[in-house]
Amino acid sequence: MSESFARFEDRPESGAAPRSITGRLARRVLAAAGDPPVRLRLWTGEVVQCAGTPLATLELRDAGALWGLLLDPDRGFGHGYTSGRIGFAGDLTEFLADIFRRGAARRTGQGLAFRPRRQLLRPKAIASSRANVHHHYDIGNDFYRLWLDPTLSYTCAYYPTAQATLAEAQQAKIHHVARKLRLKPGELVVEAGCGWGGFALTVAQHYGVRVRAFNISHEQIEHARAAARTSGLAGQVEFIEDDYRNIPGSVTGRCDAFVSIGMLEHVGIAHYAELGHLVTRLLEPHGRGLIHSIGRNAAEPVSGWIRDRIFPGGEVPSLAEMVSLFAPDELAVIDVENLRPHYALTLRDWLNAFERSADEVRRMFDEEFLRTWRLYLAGSRAAFLTGEMQLFQVLFAPRSNDDWALTRAHLYTS
Amino acid sequence: MSESFARFEDRPESGAAPRSITGRLARRVLAAAGDPPVRLRLWTGEVVQCAGTPLATLELRDAGALWGLLLDPDRGFGHGYTSGRIGFAGDLTEFLADIFRRGAARRTGQGLAFRPRRQLLRPKAIASSRANVHHHYDIGNDFYRLWLDPTLSYTCAYYPTAQATLAEAQQAKIHHVARKLRLKPGELVVEAGCGWGGFALTVAQHYGVRVRAFNISHEQIEHARAAARTSGLAGQVEFIEDDYRNIPGSVTGRCDAFVSIGMLEHVGIAHYAELGHLVTRLLEPHGRGLIHSIGRNAAEPVSGWIRDRIFPGGEVPSLAEMVSLFAPDELAVIDVENLRPHYALTLRDWLNAFERSADEVRRMFDEEFLRTWRLYLAGSRAAFLTGEMQLFQVLFAPRSNDDWALTRAHLYTS
Repeated sequence: MSESFARFEDRPESGAAPRSITGRLARRVLAAAGDPPVRLRLWTGEVVQCAGTPLATLELRDAGALWGLLLDPDRGFGHGYTSGRIGFAGDLTEFLADIFRRGAARRTGQGLAFRPRRQLLRPKAIASSRANVHHHYDIGNDFYRLWLDPTLSYTCAYYPTAQATLAEAQQAKIHHVARKLRLKPGELVVEAGCGWGGFALTVAQHYGVRVRAFNISHEQIEHARAAARTSGLAGQVEFIEDDYRNIPGSVTGRCDAFVSIGMLEHVGIAHYAELGHLVTRLLEPHGRGLIHSIGRNAAEPVSGWIRDRIFPGGEVPSLAEMVSLFAPDELAVIDVENLRPHYALTLRDWLNAFERSADEVRRMFDEEFLRTWRLYLAGSRAAFLTGEMQLFQVLFAPRSNDDWALTRAHLYTS
Repeated sequence: MSESFARFEDRPESGAAPRSITGRLARRVLAAAGDPPVRLRLWTGEVVQCAGTPLATLELRDAGALWGLLLDPDRGFGHGYTSGRIGFAGDLTEFLADIFRRGAARRTGQGLAFRPRRQLLRPKAIASSRANVHHHYDIGNDFYRLWLDPTLSYTCAYYPTAQATLAEAQQAKIHHVARKLRLKPGELVVEAGCGWGGFALTVAQHYGVRVRAFNISHEQIEHARAAARTSGLAGQVEFIEDDYRNIPGSVTGRCDAFVSIGMLEHVGIAHYAELGHLVTRLLEPHGRGLIHSIGRNAAEPVSGWIRDRIFPGGEVPSLAEMVSLFAPDELAVIDVENLRPHYALTLRDWLNAFERSADEVRRMFDEEFLRTWRLYLAGSRAAFLTGEMQLFQVLFAPRSNDDWALTRAHLYTS
């Protein structure tokens, strides 16, 4: 993730206030970020840095890069880095983790004080959801094959031990969810947002359930259908190219289990109660449900750069916002597990595989695409390492279901 | 829990509308409760009942009992039953469970519609908290000894199997919490609301930790101190008769773990953020915390009768309200376990022991006291059986702590 810079003559001004206007503005950028141990090299030849051994060097290649960092550090760094107007030497994950920790430290102790207010998005029309999903998931299965596991699971894995491989951890995640849901042969499972079909196909094969799986990504559904045919599971699993909001019209009767792994981030908080209501109408009285989603410790808006470039329309809930999904219909929350360390491990494995395929990615797309995805993956790993983001698996049931497992021991016996 | 009635001549009017005013009012009481299969015998000799085999017979011994049920069914039944103006024959738990289920069924499907608004209490002064706690917990250790386990644990137990005894399940609860907190020898634990000291003494003995335990119930603190001396743990465990809000002034430095089992119900939702802030200032960067509290699927006021007679000042949070405690300080929620089935078992065991000591309770207090506690225990068991109430154990940590157990398997190995 390092790159070699054109040779500048270093003129560090650490400690002393830089005299030039550009130098003073660069120092302001560092102060706003909590004075991280970072060296800024300006296009003027000036070097500005904070005390301590620099963790990274940022090369601001024109005035626009500096103004971007001053006006909106998040987007300024993101767009600057991916366009190449900001050069970077160092470990991107470590640098971003340091920035996140400084931000958290500044907020700590404020306790009840002001927090930035989340801008709630307008309820999304199904058409705009389709456009948002197409933006991210339809860029080509060949690209995702380069760095995901063989099932193309593109959500947090579950590492039974830290030594597990990515492929093992993705399998373990599917079984962990299936065991939480206590799936039984012959049951009907509805999956909302099924990705490339890894969960649906695996539980059909191993737990003897029928699955109706929904997704609005055309490329993913095509892949999943082909995989169902190849594995002889087409009679048991049906992949439906449609929005989760159309599930009630598409499923006759009720289902035994509802599952959604990594879709809630695209639903939008304004739609949560509607989703809870849909699930309630869908589940049998003895039914169970599980929602797996990225979350946060406190309500905060998603990074502007992430919304611009990675997940248009994405919203990450606080746990309080997430569980408020279940209240209007009195769905009982049975178990919440925070898999944050597992997402840090998953992203480590994705990022390593991605870097091994960097030349291939550059050939398939271009340098800017490569830098965009590198920043997104490294930033996500930093976010899960530092607690900027969490991953919540929430198991729930309609109030009418009182057939709960007495303990969770059954999840931990083989 | 049944009592024999004076013989009335039964004149059931099932189906046909009763012609008398009292009969019509009695039928209105049943309709408001969702037409439960119950027989009402009025002081006039009339009998009104719903279709189906009656689950219970209520004898309304005067007009006041009927008016009470009409105007405020919850308080009307509670005060009527405990004062003896309402006689009851049948299984009290089954009857109340049926009433709760009917209430839930009426609400189901309303989904996003109106729900009764919780009346948030004013922030409680420490003096009024003392009075509230005194009301319930200082009525005499001898009374609690009649039906609690030997450690006098007066919170939901944890049954590793449905066959465990109450005493085993209370011990298992303490170890379950200690394992979730990953207590290590020499660590300092602060406990807010320590009851009779069962948790503090057990973890000091088995995990080698030091404990500072706070409680504003004088009788409980006296008992706990005596137990510490008897068991030779007085050097390791300190019991402090003070409000949790005074912990910061009483604990020098920071602690490794914070625990609160069954106190949050007395804190009041308006104080949650303040409690989260207190815990944040108290915990070491590597610290862990666990809060164990009764909760609900959705925000709703506590039963008026319970507030009148059992827990003045008590407030039961929804899970969303409970986890909002952790957001302002970005405390990370690691694990939420709903122990609702365990509270139904705990209350079964308490209620059975209570009934075995009924004569003794009547001798120590009076008939009204006996009926009050019987109704409270049976009503609580019905509430946990039917999902009217939940029991949430929430494990959390400051954002700075990233030393989490990778999985929860360690809770399930011996």
